[in-house]
Amino acid sequence: MFSASTYTDRRRTLMEAKEPASGLVLLLGNEQSAMNYRGNPYPFRQDSSFLYYFGLDVPGLAAVIDLDSGRVCLYGDDPDLDDVVWMGDRPSIQEYAARAGVDTTASRSSLPEDLTAAIEKGRSVHFLPPYRAQQHHRLERLLGIDRERQHTFASAALVRTVVSQRSVKSDAEVDELETAVDITAEMHKTAMHMAEPGRTEREIAGRLSGIADARGQGLSFRPTCSIHGEVLHNHEYSNTLAADDLLLVDAGAASPLHYAGDITRVIPVGGSFSSRQEAIYEAVLDAQMGAIDALKPGVPFRDIHLHAARILTEHLVDLGLMNGPVDAAVDAGAHALFFAHGLGHLLGLDTHEMENLGEDVVGYSADQARSEQFGLHTLRLARPLKPGFVVTIEPGCYFIPALIRRWRQNQRHAKFINYNAVADFESFGGVRIEDDVLITDDGARVLGPGIPKSLDAVEAECQR
Amino acid sequence: MFSASTYTDRRRTLMEAKEPASGLVLLLGNEQSAMNYRGNPYPFRQDSSFLYYFGLDVPGLAAVIDLDSGRVCLYGDDPDLDDVVWMGDRPSIQEYAARAGVDTTASRSSLPEDLTAAIEKGRSVHFLPPYRAQQHHRLERLLGIDRERQHTFASAALVRTVVSQRSVKSDAEVDELETAVDITAEMHKTAMHMAEPGRTEREIAGRLSGIADARGQGLSFRPTCSIHGEVLHNHEYSNTLAADDLLLVDAGAASPLHYAGDITRVIPVGGSFSSRQEAIYEAVLDAQMGAIDALKPGVPFRDIHLHAARILTEHLVDLGLMNGPVDAAVDAGAHALFFAHGLGHLLGLDTHEMENLGEDVVGYSADQARSEQFGLHTLRLARPLKPGFVVTIEPGCYFIPALIRRWRQNQRHAKFINYNAVADFESFGGVRIEDDVLITDDGARVLGPGIPKSLDAVEAECQR
Repeated sequence: MFSASTYTDRRRTLMEAKEPASGLVLLLGNEQSAMNYRGNPYPFRQDSSFLYYFGLDVPGLAAVIDLDSGRVCLYGDDPDLDDVVWMGDRPSIQEYAARAGVDTTASRSSLPEDLTAAIEKGRSVHFLPPYRAQQHHRLERLLGIDRERQHTFASAALVRTVVSQRSVKSDAEVDELETAVDITAEMHKTAMHMAEPGRTEREIAGRLSGIADARGQGLSFRPTCSIHGEVLHNHEYSNTLAADDLLLVDAGAASPLHYAGDITRVIPVGGSFSSRQEAIYEAVLDAQMGAIDALKPGVPFRDIHLHAARILTEHLVDLGLMNGPVDAAVDAGAHALFFAHGLGHLLGLDTHEMENLGEDVVGYSADQARSEQFGLHTLRLARPLKPGFVVTIEPGCYFIPALIRRWRQNQRHAKFINYNAVADFESFGGVRIEDDVLITDDGARVLGPGIPKSLDAVEAECQR
Repeated sequence: MFSASTYTDRRRTLMEAKEPASGLVLLLGNEQSAMNYRGNPYPFRQDSSFLYYFGLDVPGLAAVIDLDSGRVCLYGDDPDLDDVVWMGDRPSIQEYAARAGVDTTASRSSLPEDLTAAIEKGRSVHFLPPYRAQQHHRLERLLGIDRERQHTFASAALVRTVVSQRSVKSDAEVDELETAVDITAEMHKTAMHMAEPGRTEREIAGRLSGIADARGQGLSFRPTCSIHGEVLHNHEYSNTLAADDLLLVDAGAASPLHYAGDITRVIPVGGSFSSRQEAIYEAVLDAQMGAIDALKPGVPFRDIHLHAARILTEHLVDLGLMNGPVDAAVDAGAHALFFAHGLGHLLGLDTHEMENLGEDVVGYSADQARSEQFGLHTLRLARPLKPGFVVTIEPGCYFIPALIRRWRQNQRHAKFINYNAVADFESFGGVRIEDDVLITDDGARVLGPGIPKSLDAVEAECQR
């Protein structure tokens, strides 16, 4: 974890924020999550906001921050002999507290009565929206709020302040993200070395997962590793690679402190792109690099998204798949047949940073409404950028047979789309290219050691 | 999955069982389980009993078996266009049902009303004890039974019948277990090749996890991969290996159909055992092989456990760590200072097979009470063996400083334990040796391709 003062400082910033102005902030650490029986849990993953304010990466904790007195209390229990025999020696709750810069501790069992006492005095208890069934249950018991109403009663003021803090990364956090991307780079280079006809998606995905486990905290999300790159979140690994396939790998490792890498590359199976693959790849790469060039503080990310969409559309017009004018096509949302998702999202402790706090409050400013247009409606980040934001830039171009069929039947945007030309590409698959980018004071910097991205660089890495 | 008739046959056996005699059997498939936000779930793991009776390895399903009419209904929803775009095409609910040999399907939303209608007619709904918070919540909504009382209301009759069925493995299930052990063998050999001074536990554990992901359904449980083998379930991977350390690896892969491998080996870092390590290793190996030799139908597993304990104790007496008489020492439970856990457990779809159905009902016959003696109280399996059982045989010998200190302070079993001699071993660590064994008609057969186990074989594999 970071030094104790890091967490003390973060909590002080929270306490000094203009909202919530008073009351208690309740932060629940995560519990073990049962896989196929209670004694066989999934790998433990701490709650990201708990990690952010306390850094303690163990189950069974909770914390209360008193906004009025400034008192912070960590709730948890000391290990007993049985724990030591089965799970090994571990620090006392006082020792954990000291690592997080907290003076006061209490047993887990005293949390309900402490909260009840505060509520009886009329004090507010601010909590974040739960996302695990266990958290729902725990909040029901602790606060007496029915599961169905917990999102309503979660503290919008606390959410706004947490979002504001966690959105801007410190140098130490950027270092962790660099580590995540560094491990992720090894994963992608390994995939490039492995992507030969006869290999299976599963064996490549497994190797990548092993690298993430060996060097970091495992995968930051379930990877896509598929010759069907047109499926946006493809989590099946059932295919065998054949010559001329494109293998899309969207994968990332978590750093030792759980910061997420999130990178996508597309690899020509056998080592060289066909001319048609080159054309689509270049279209996406141009859009991606154009978007990165346009990043700087103050620019709404939504504008960057539309900028990338226009670059992609220009290429698609050149290829005869779409018709111009480009601006009118993008305004109408015609390009979304090929690029149905958003350009990117904030990145940090979560791959979709703070998604559990609410996509709109994380990604949109108060004066921005989320579009209802197909494609644009999935844009997770729209608000103006600030120095210290880390974002993904991940445009793509996909040929999704089910979607093409539906649009063609309805002759949707027929003015802008050459459905006959598109039909030739129906089995093409998909291309997405993604990097993780830090917004700096005057522009942006791509994180990581550099992962082969140009057509030549990818082909050269495949030959290694 | 297996053929549809496999599942039809298993359900027929359930329907023809003497209990439960009538009513509905409700089997809930598992849902996705959120990791750090809803959109970032852990790898999906289907409920094992649902897998056993339906084989369908996807979230969002439930099934009802009508014990009176013989009607079986699978509840689930067809994918919509959004699912296809994001997650890829998948079968309709009718197609899934056909794969499981089920004729009738219904939408997820009709399950509550179907159950309510049955309850209003006075029919019983039999369900298994839940182990995930989501299942608790779902049962609350479906049956109106408060979370705290769900274990009381779970069907003991259904549990008994499921336990009776799942305990005895078919040939096809044994084949899957062989596959699991085969992948697990590659993991252990890899660990033997990697266990050199300067390597970290994490990089070895990561490599093993990658093998399990690449060839199977990932790890069947969180592995121990530690130079502190005296911690029974050590899930930290924070140490760097040094010459003369013993690396204990307790790990297993899940087969394509989710059957679990569970194997332990102990590896001398640098490739050769010291004479003291050899002595403890031989003691455990003798106990393990003696136990395997004693396995056959009809013998209570508890007797096998005590047999292994006596062999281990004989060695410890020879080494001057304990005093005889051996039988008296084992009867008193003195050996549990060194061997504090049970000899093994049933193995199958779960590593601790059916542990969520209740340890006692799975591992003990009605006339066997669980011992309260330290060590023996953790024995998971005690009942008489039957052909088709698959069990783990995993004796160990550990030097646990905290436990030794406690016992010595209290002079516990001082007649049988030479605490001064034990003190010399306090930093020894621990040894456990584990195989997966099928009970046959007249004895037992160790599963898998053979994983180096003798001192010489382990040393030879380390040199490879």
